[in-house]
Amino acid sequence: MPDSTSANRTPATGEPTAAESTRERIVTAAKTEFSQHGIAGARVDRIAKRARTSTERVYAYFRGKEALYAFIARRELAVVADATRMDPTDLPGYAGRLFDYFSDHPEHFRLISWGRLELVNSASPDPDDPSQAAITHKIEQLRRAQEAGTLTPSWDPVDVLALVNQIATTWATQTELCAMTAEQARDPAATARRAAVVDAVQRLFPASA
Amino acid sequence: MPDSTSANRTPATGEPTAAESTRERIVTAAKTEFSQHGIAGARVDRIAKRARTSTERVYAYFRGKEALYAFIARRELAVVADATRMDPTDLPGYAGRLFDYFSDHPEHFRLISWGRLELVNSASPDPDDPSQAAITHKIEQLRRAQEAGTLTPSWDPVDVLALVNQIATTWATQTELCAMTAEQARDPAATARRAAVVDAVQRLFPASA
Repeated sequence: MPDSTSANRTPATGEPTAAESTRERIVTAAKTEFSQHGIAGARVDRIAKRARTSTERVYAYFRGKEALYAFIARRELAVVADATRMDPTDLPGYAGRLFDYFSDHPEHFRLISWGRLELVNSASPDPDDPSQAAITHKIEQLRRAQEAGTLTPSWDPVDVLALVNQIATTWATQTELCAMTAEQARDPAATARRAAVVDAVQRLFPASA
Repeated sequence: MPDSTSANRTPATGEPTAAESTRERIVTAAKTEFSQHGIAGARVDRIAKRARTSTERVYAYFRGKEALYAFIARRELAVVADATRMDPTDLPGYAGRLFDYFSDHPEHFRLISWGRLELVNSASPDPDDPSQAAITHKIEQLRRAQEAGTLTPSWDPVDVLALVNQIATTWATQTELCAMTAEQARDPAATARRAAVVDAVQRLFPASA
């Protein structure tokens, strides 16, 4: 499926066509809807209304809710990957960028979390899925860093990736504990949470250099 | 709300009453329903059918879906806490027990995860909520262990609790990466995942011998 931010532009001006701009409004509206209500809870009529179009147009652009979610999730994962760029020689820095990204965009974390809960049956590996290809690429990057001596070789690269992701998203995940930090933390500032996350990754997988 | 496993028993025999056993069947059915579909997606008619009762009886025992979810979530948190027992002098051991618990009961982890996504508006701290009281108690246990010199004092206890919870649930959370371990891990066995989780917590917060 082509990314509508680059496809179908009027060549002369680079302005979006009417069709493209409707499609993009649908995607924006759907992002909000899925982030708030998940996939099963999302309603196409609310998406259409927010996008100032009809449910028929939504179905004309996307086969249905699931296809629309899949399109958005894939694009969001690419956006996160681009904004955070895993550097296998500086995993603490990467964890900090992930922390910042999901602090600034909690709705992106919700989008991913709904999919994890709702798409259990599609969890079987499919190497052609771009998000799985991205994971495989990251594991390979970590493996090569271990061979090059810039990452401690004792850990399985799969565990390294999982632990860094997990630690970086500690506060995006544990919303109930996050809400209690104002009362309970020595230093309630978000910068203190970020420093602890980065410190934990640094102790496990120190940056080389 | 009294826990129906101990309340309303016929004193002479200790056998559950008919009312209690209906109520318990509703709770069991609702656990399955919430774990699969979340709160918004759960249907009271399906819960009633699975519990071999009527929707009217479900509403007679519980005010509604949200109250039923709140009752179950509270009880499940108590069950997890009881099964895993946080020992502030042995956090790696605690992480291993959490890992085991959620490996054996993925449906409990799903129950908690739905609540985190769906109950965003109730995330503001309420010290009378038993689950928040349990968190406060754990933070206090960690603080005392730091004062006693059995836990490294440099970390904020809030960060310690969040990081241990988070690392222990790495594989329950990242289902998409978990599904890829068979192909991608050096050692695809669940024991290898468990060992990495326990090792990570040991390196950050070593057990005091």
